[in-house]
This record gives sequence, C-alpha cells and structure tokens, in this order.
Amino acid sequence: MSSNPAQLNIRDLPLRWRTSDAWGSQVLKHPLALLNDHAHLEKKAAANALELLNRWPEPCPPENWVQAMTAVARDEVEHLALVVRLLARRGGRLTRTHANPYAAALRDLVRHGRGPLELIDRLLVSALIELRSCERFEILARCCDDAQLARVYRGLWASEAGHYLSFLGLARALPDATRVDERWEWMLDRESRIIASQPPGPRMHGGI
Amino acid sequence: MSSNPAQLNIRDLPLRWRTSDAWGSQVLKHPLALLNDHAHLEKKAAANALELLNRWPEPCPPENWVQAMTAVARDEVEHLALVVRLLARRGGRLTRTHANPYAAALRDLVRHGRGPLELIDRLLVSALIELRSCERFEILARCCDDAQLARVYRGLWASEAGHYLSFLGLARALPDATRVDERWEWMLDRESRIIASQPPGPRMHGGI
Repeated sequence: MSSNPAQLNIRDLPLRWRTSDAWGSQVLKHPLALLNDHAHLEKKAAANALELLNRWPEPCPPENWVQAMTAVARDEVEHLALVVRLLARRGGRLTRTHANPYAAALRDLVRHGRGPLELIDRLLVSALIELRSCERFEILARCCDDAQLARVYRGLWASEAGHYLSFLGLARALPDATRVDERWEWMLDRESRIIASQPPGPRMHGGI
Repeated sequence: MSSNPAQLNIRDLPLRWRTSDAWGSQVLKHPLALLNDHAHLEKKAAANALELLNRWPEPCPPENWVQAMTAVARDEVEHLALVVRLLARRGGRLTRTHANPYAAALRDLVRHGRGPLELIDRLLVSALIELRSCERFEILARCCDDAQLARVYRGLWASEAGHYLSFLGLARALPDATRVDERWEWMLDRESRIIASQPPGPRMHGGI
C-alpha cells in the first residue's frame, strides 16, 4: 500500500466489510443531522489527539510523535470549524448530546491500564475510525448532489486517509510494537462485525 | 477599550499586578524550558476550548458561541504545533509532566456544578489566563535577543489578546450574565494575588 494518501485508492483500504452506496443515498436525505454527527466526530477526534499527547507526551521513538499528534489535532479542529460553519449556514446547530455506539464498541477493544499495549491499541482504534471514515467520505463525495458538500467530503477523504496511515505507522514504530500486525488484523476483523451491526441513521458510522 | 486586539495596547490590559521586564530577562536565560512550559500551556488551552464546547455545545445566546470556541481551539492547536516545532529544532523535547500552580489556583475560583455560574466563571478564568499571557508575551517580545523567538512572541501577543476579549465578551453575552462585571473585578483582584505569589522559574506564569 502506498504511504502517500494522495495515491491511495478506496480499493486499497483493508476493510473487511464494505459499505454500499445505498448508505450514502440514505444518509444524504438528512444533511443537517449528518453534519451535526460529523461535527461531533471531528471534535472528538481533535480531543483524542490532544489526550494521546497528554498521556504519552514522549514515547520516542517514534521520533515524529509530537509533530504527528499536533498535526492530527490541528487538522481535526480545522475540520470541526469547517463543518460547524456549514451547519450554521444551512440553519442547523450542534446538538447538546451525541451518542456514538460504533466508537464506544471500538474503545472496548483497548487493553486499558496496560501501558504500551494500551497505547498500541488506542493508536490502532484511532486508525480504524479514520479508515472507516475514509470509506464513508468517498461514498458521500460520489453520491452527493450538492456541489459544496461533495467538495468538502472529497477533501476530507484525503486528509483522513493521511491520518489513518499516520496512526498505523506510529503504532508500528513504537518500541514495544511486537505483534502489532497481528493485533491490527484482529482489530480489522472486529471492526467489520461492529460496523455491520450498527443501526441505520444519519450518522457517519451508522449501519445500513 | 477597543474590541480590536490589533489596536490593544499593553497599558490597556486591566491587570492589577504588573510584571517587570526583569521577569523576561530572567526566564529567557532558559529558552528550552520556557518553550516546553509554553507548549504544555497551548495544549491545555486547546483542550479547554474543546471541553467547553463539549460541556456547553449550545448556550445560544451568544449566537457565535460554537464558532468562537472552534476558532480558539484552532488557534491554540496551531500555536502548539508552532512551539513544539521550535522546541524540537532547538534540541528540546516536551516533558512528560507539567505543573501549573497558577492555573490550578485560578481554577479553584470556579463555582463548580453551578450550571450557568460555572460557565461564566470558566470563561472569566480563561479570559484571565489569556490576559496574563498577553502581558508576558509582550515582555518576551521586547526582551528577547533571538529574532525568531521575538517574532513568535509578538505574533502570539495579538492572538491571545483576541482570545482574552473573546472569552470576556462571551461571558458578558450569556443569558444568565447578571453581575458578570462585578465577578470579573473580583477575579482580577484574586488573579493579581495569585500571580504575585508564584515561585520564580522558567515558566510563562511564574513569579519573579
């Protein structure tokens, strides 16, 4: 697989369960609800990068850890600002609460309190979420009749692909990264079952 | 006072205790320790904006709440990336832990669990920290012999001045914002005692 996200093709994504275009057509019937869910996800992604940096300020290697985490946080906050602006201009607003059963189920896979193993798992779960988001943004960009939204979704696909590769690369570069590939394969398998069992609805990580 | 941070002068800052230039000369003897402390502060400022947005996604009014919070978070993450890059290029690295007794003492002023009163206090404490940072950046920009660092500190002064005005303006625009000015005066008074009692050291919010 290319390490340059610009050269990444949706068929290269190692997902074990593929979302059909019917999902895109369905969720795009509720663009404001989808943007609201999306804004909450960007906020959580930014907070996640800052929290990783806070709990593990210096795994070292990987040498580029701090720069990679600040880059992800900066991108996610920029996406958050972009999505919130789109939402506001279209008459929507950010809801008070936001449930994300998909991410909650993935977080249950993390070996909490296990030091380096917890960090590996948290990076792999972050990579999984970015990976699935990539697939979904690509579908939205193709299925969306609204030119402005389609452009936004297309731009996000490239950015999130970069994040997916970044998180996976960081996990593999950790000093305790033995058996990361084995763990990643196991995680991909679990993710496919989790996403396939999600209830449908206007959410980035909903089922169909 | 002007609401345009570009027109704001250091003498306009309503601080009750003024830092002498001796503080700047002192802390600039340890530029890496100062950059490390600074990076941690930017990280915490970004996390604070996201946390405010998470706990209060929609006070509404103020109408511009979500946009203002995402703008602060974006700025702080950009500053974090900038400071971490400077630190790394100069051979420093982000430390694992970071104590900030100044911010901890200010947080003790917040009326926790009191709904709208807690939000008012958290905005005012955020405004106080930005206000003090403004003063300190202005001193650093003037006292610093290193042209690159001086330029960075000068740029941050303008940005943090904007944040100070933004937090204070948001607190005043809240629907429950009765007696905000009285509370702000009280907070300014407490802040002056807290900063004056800080131990010296290469920190943005240390004493002299």
